[in-house]
Amino acid sequence: MTDIDALAARLRAAIGARRVLTDRQELRTYECDGLAHYKVIPALVALPVTAAQVAEVVRECAAAGVPFVARGSGTGLSGGALPHADGVLIVTSQLREILDVRPEDERAVVQPGVINLQVTKEATPHGYYYAPDPSSQQICSIGGNVAENSGGAHCLKYGFTTNHVTGLEVVAPDGELVRLGGPAPDTPGYDLLGAFVGSEGTLGVATEVTVKLTRLPETVRTLLAAFGSTDQAGAATSAIIAAGVVPAAVEMMDALAIEAAEAAVRCGYPAGAGAVLIVELDGPAAEVEAQFDEVSALCAANGAFETRIAADDTERALIWRGRKSAFAAVGRISPDYIVQDGVIPRTALPEVLRRIGEVAAEHGVRVANVFHAGDGNLHPLVLFDDTVPGQAERAEAVSGAILDLCIEHGGSITGEHGVGVDKARYMPRMFSDADLDTMQLVRCAFDPDGIANPGKVFPTPRLCGERPGPRKGAHPLHEQDVAEVF
Amino acid sequence: MTDIDALAARLRAAIGARRVLTDRQELRTYECDGLAHYKVIPALVALPVTAAQVAEVVRECAAAGVPFVARGSGTGLSGGALPHADGVLIVTSQLREILDVRPEDERAVVQPGVINLQVTKEATPHGYYYAPDPSSQQICSIGGNVAENSGGAHCLKYGFTTNHVTGLEVVAPDGELVRLGGPAPDTPGYDLLGAFVGSEGTLGVATEVTVKLTRLPETVRTLLAAFGSTDQAGAATSAIIAAGVVPAAVEMMDALAIEAAEAAVRCGYPAGAGAVLIVELDGPAAEVEAQFDEVSALCAANGAFETRIAADDTERALIWRGRKSAFAAVGRISPDYIVQDGVIPRTALPEVLRRIGEVAAEHGVRVANVFHAGDGNLHPLVLFDDTVPGQAERAEAVSGAILDLCIEHGGSITGEHGVGVDKARYMPRMFSDADLDTMQLVRCAFDPDGIANPGKVFPTPRLCGERPGPRKGAHPLHEQDVAEVF
Repeated sequence: MTDIDALAARLRAAIGARRVLTDRQELRTYECDGLAHYKVIPALVALPVTAAQVAEVVRECAAAGVPFVARGSGTGLSGGALPHADGVLIVTSQLREILDVRPEDERAVVQPGVINLQVTKEATPHGYYYAPDPSSQQICSIGGNVAENSGGAHCLKYGFTTNHVTGLEVVAPDGELVRLGGPAPDTPGYDLLGAFVGSEGTLGVATEVTVKLTRLPETVRTLLAAFGSTDQAGAATSAIIAAGVVPAAVEMMDALAIEAAEAAVRCGYPAGAGAVLIVELDGPAAEVEAQFDEVSALCAANGAFETRIAADDTERALIWRGRKSAFAAVGRISPDYIVQDGVIPRTALPEVLRRIGEVAAEHGVRVANVFHAGDGNLHPLVLFDDTVPGQAERAEAVSGAILDLCIEHGGSITGEHGVGVDKARYMPRMFSDADLDTMQLVRCAFDPDGIANPGKVFPTPRLCGERPGPRKGAHPLHEQDVAEVF
Repeated sequence: MTDIDALAARLRAAIGARRVLTDRQELRTYECDGLAHYKVIPALVALPVTAAQVAEVVRECAAAGVPFVARGSGTGLSGGALPHADGVLIVTSQLREILDVRPEDERAVVQPGVINLQVTKEATPHGYYYAPDPSSQQICSIGGNVAENSGGAHCLKYGFTTNHVTGLEVVAPDGELVRLGGPAPDTPGYDLLGAFVGSEGTLGVATEVTVKLTRLPETVRTLLAAFGSTDQAGAATSAIIAAGVVPAAVEMMDALAIEAAEAAVRCGYPAGAGAVLIVELDGPAAEVEAQFDEVSALCAANGAFETRIAADDTERALIWRGRKSAFAAVGRISPDYIVQDGVIPRTALPEVLRRIGEVAAEHGVRVANVFHAGDGNLHPLVLFDDTVPGQAERAEAVSGAILDLCIEHGGSITGEHGVGVDKARYMPRMFSDADLDTMQLVRCAFDPDGIANPGKVFPTPRLCGERPGPRKGAHPLHEQDVAEVF
């Protein structure tokens, strides 16, 4: 009996035989998340239904020294839920109850497997919704959102997942159930809640999430403005923010992204546009009406040659349809593509978009841009054809160069998709050894044996258990590069 | 030569003789912070002028195994900057430069000794301000605000310090300079920035702070409503929030607090009021006007017998004068008082205020309430006369009972003043052993020798350096109670 067989037996006894998968065909279902070009079949899949069962599974993994990876709906785009070949994949999608909705305190308490949009559906009859809205909100889970600190089009005004989670129950990597944060606005002691949100499964598994509910706005107004170039659209974005307006969303699509969206969903965006902006304002009717006129004027002043205003929900949905379908639509104009995710200061938008165009041209690769312009969160889609030798490599080079551009301009290598397995190698471009070492101090504190989602986030896992003496060079690092694992 | 003499010599060599104080008279200046009933004279005071000098001082402390405590302006109300008798007090008030103001990116970069209000003064000509506004904002430092995660009257709408700090340079307890966070909205890796903000000096010393600047509102309108009772004022508060209005501030004062304010500054609040609410709305003029009418109507509907609207800045200042002077004003009606700080869900306000009244009556003690009603952040002032035997003890008992009420109602033992030395003993009432142990894992990771502000926040410091095996009971704790240190 192998170690994994022994662990499987113990897990079956602990959480029930049906909840433990070891059949290779069944395991294959879980070989990747939304970033499908990394694939690893896990040794075992556990499907717990309660927080206590999650704790049991983690405790058994800890006792056996076997790595574990938590997975929600598996929609992540950085490979954060990629399984470990010798490890246990803990699927939290069976923990899907909404435990409490308290509109009077603007809070809901949910299990990690609850689908993002479901929270909004439960809260809407009370006049509330859950603000963070990743594009995948119809299928992604709150637990996954917590792991990746997910964003969305409306995070410009409302903030990321971390701004909407006020309390967590988590299973630490030793199997202990711990509470972080709570319903009060400022909990004493360390804010480990903030450190946990976005830790991508490396500090434990969330088993209960208390989220803020946001009041449904009195009014929503949506505008589509067409520009000759991304420079003009970028300048309009800066002008809107500089005027003190905080739109709910400011989204940009460039010519190639518009072409793709038209091919896929015939959204009917203005012909001949080098870029479109979608600007959405929400809030009290009096405020929205006044600011809406200002936004229209600023778009015109910055070169918009056509502006459309959604007259009703149907027209609003049509404007958003092009934007929301853009990623998938790119499949219409290119057999393969890489979705990149990076952040730059909003003021650097025109410059960085120009540089992306230059880098793409140098490598003979096309890049479509669809992104959250308001907060400088780029999503360049690097197009290629995997059947043409060399194209994938060139696309990969452009994709990496885009991240370098983000760092150069004072930005970040990920806005909302996370580091996962995909970007661990870029972390040293953004952080000094001392910075990374400080983060790993925390990882080692929580997980001295390195069994919680190993190989993710950090390029070179450090050996824990040594006394931090003089920091630099004192900690031997694994020589193995994460990129070699796959 | 004692150890401290040797350390003093090394520090004088490192940062200059003038910057190291060891004379007992000079040291006495620093014996307490704003919570003056704890007093400890430090062994040595260091007055560094650069981040590099702060790092030098910490490195020397680490090498000598000597504890250090960082202090900004010394206005804290939980004894967080209380010196250690055998340790070094690092005063950061000489690091007082505003390094950069970038309105186009809505950021400023400041040194920790910069005074809170100074940031707003620098930003105002650009149309911006720094939102967190503790009552002490004319004298408190940004570094202290970071340590305590300071709040203020306008945090209801704008959030606490942690919501306005996007990047830090800190000296870790081993003397290494580390960067946490940055200008981008979501930094990859762990959000240690959030953990550091509010860590009360136990994870290191901030040496540079990047803060968000907030656009000056187009309009500010302020209203004072007088009610017969705190029940009515509490109900009005709930009604305003339930209507979807987010005021910039909702402050409440009860009859005793009003009496004190009148005695001190003759603010002219309506006679016979059992409670007053100050409601301030800010934002676009169109929104503010519309919501202002709604707020007035809701106050009237909940029993307000008089409502005053500030016609200009002078009248606005007059309304705020009573509120802002209230703490000091209590000195007019009582020789001594304890300022308590706790949080409850807003919906529990009427019930908890009633219970506070009952507890006070049982102990024969008077309690004045002045507080941030909008976010349920109570500041009961427990009045006593230290010259009357037994009164101080009774006041202390009432003060503790108020925290128990907060915890019972799902709140917290501190809203914005921090745990410091004063409330460490209450932490186990709010957190389980496992929760506290998890926080201390992080403390040990940063500070294995326990030299960064020891005796604060945690009631029973744990011995670091042991492998976390099975968690419960495995970590021997110091038997010494922090309360015995003084």
